[in-house]
Amino acid sequence: MSLDRARRPGPTVRTRVHEISDAGERRREDRLATEEPLEIRLTWPGAPARRVWVTMRTPGHDFELAAGWLVHEGLAGPGTIHGVAYCTDADLAPEQEFNVVTVTLAAPPLRDPGHRHVGQSSGSSACGVCGKDSIAEALAAPAAGRWPGALPSSEVVRRLPDLVRERQSVFDRTGGVHAAALATADGDLLVVREDVGRHNAVDKVTGARVLAGAVPAEACLVVSGRAGFELVQKAIAAGVGSLVAVGAPTSLSARLAAESGLVLYGFTRPDRCVRYS
Amino acid sequence: MSLDRARRPGPTVRTRVHEISDAGERRREDRLATEEPLEIRLTWPGAPARRVWVTMRTPGHDFELAAGWLVHEGLAGPGTIHGVAYCTDADLAPEQEFNVVTVTLAAPPLRDPGHRHVGQSSGSSACGVCGKDSIAEALAAPAAGRWPGALPSSEVVRRLPDLVRERQSVFDRTGGVHAAALATADGDLLVVREDVGRHNAVDKVTGARVLAGAVPAEACLVVSGRAGFELVQKAIAAGVGSLVAVGAPTSLSARLAAESGLVLYGFTRPDRCVRYS
Repeated sequence: MSLDRARRPGPTVRTRVHEISDAGERRREDRLATEEPLEIRLTWPGAPARRVWVTMRTPGHDFELAAGWLVHEGLAGPGTIHGVAYCTDADLAPEQEFNVVTVTLAAPPLRDPGHRHVGQSSGSSACGVCGKDSIAEALAAPAAGRWPGALPSSEVVRRLPDLVRERQSVFDRTGGVHAAALATADGDLLVVREDVGRHNAVDKVTGARVLAGAVPAEACLVVSGRAGFELVQKAIAAGVGSLVAVGAPTSLSARLAAESGLVLYGFTRPDRCVRYS
Repeated sequence: MSLDRARRPGPTVRTRVHEISDAGERRREDRLATEEPLEIRLTWPGAPARRVWVTMRTPGHDFELAAGWLVHEGLAGPGTIHGVAYCTDADLAPEQEFNVVTVTLAAPPLRDPGHRHVGQSSGSSACGVCGKDSIAEALAAPAAGRWPGALPSSEVVRRLPDLVRERQSVFDRTGGVHAAALATADGDLLVVREDVGRHNAVDKVTGARVLAGAVPAEACLVVSGRAGFELVQKAIAAGVGSLVAVGAPTSLSARLAAESGLVLYGFTRPDRCVRYS
């Protein structure tokens, strides 16, 4: 299909706001980070497309978001994605045309898409009571090999958040988005992505690599916010060697990182960082 | 069931970390915000319990989290919750005993729990391709009346985040949790709750009110982070008059707030705030 850019939402929108300070109230123009739903559909030879996830996201790099999410969920791997396209369903509302992405796999997925990790996406309400299994699933560590290469030194680690920040063009305009980046052990940034959802930003980074024909495994994943359990799960699924967060980790993320051999940094600033595993 | 407090996880856990600065590396003790899964089950007279949601959350106020989530989802209302209890299933792993909560409604829920808003919780992967409906559902404004009472002045609004911050005991210890609070038009805080998930903190606030026999509608909901679409949906579902965020809103949250008559503030600080609707 042709990409009619005039109708595609951009990463920011203009709006009129009232700014209120001790000096009084004034009207001015502001920019907000765009937030729109994205529905991901999955199909493979012989299988009709099925909806597998809906997320609120910042438009842009949508194919990467879909591809990366599937890789993190264990539903696709490097080389298994045959194609990604915006939906052309005739019954789709025109304004939703760029909010639905269909991913075509070359072969059936690595596991049943009907069973997903919760957290990244909630369990089905129709599956009845199966608490033990579902919580066990939620807590499962993704299957992935350890990063065999070099890791960034703590000096490099402490520099990374500022390097990412310099490339956050949507944050500059809105102050309202998170970023994720993939970096080498020397601190070179390979890809930087932004999104209103911090998990989406990580999905986009992995998807960018996979769609470019590369593996998502690298020395270091950098995130602009906190490092919760789901981000550690994604880092492990992508096969990175270390996760560098500007904010705090949680009890569960530190435990999973330690068990999985992922080196986890939090509260990362130029003068200081804290290593949790 | 008896509440064996010795086995209930607290809101923080101790851990050993490495702090790295220009002065070198030192080992010290640190505290992390606890993150554990919570599974919510729903039952009513004549209906077996069904799992409706799993979320990663900070333990504490679990009954409120479950009750508030159901209210925000339109599955329960003030006065319809008959009881809330930790699960006593014999087949549940002992360490998960306090991670499963069953809510008993006095009557069938207001709508089918099999159809939920996405975003707060993802659509079922088993429901096939129904993109138009699911995105429409994701974007639906909750049905709720407008707050009929007075709203806080901009002077009160700019004071609120610091008032909430003073009562964030878990943040003080970990730096890793979000907060939400309900406030009167005069700036009195009625309830403050913390969680690793900012949506969970809002669920807990609404649940606290509902389980105390009060309505969740009040002049003002305060959140420590950004005001994305899902938080605006929850604010409207709770029936509050205004939403005060420390961070940025998004394009969609500002639009929904304007359409629903919710007064939305962002970038709220003592000297300044921005009104978006």
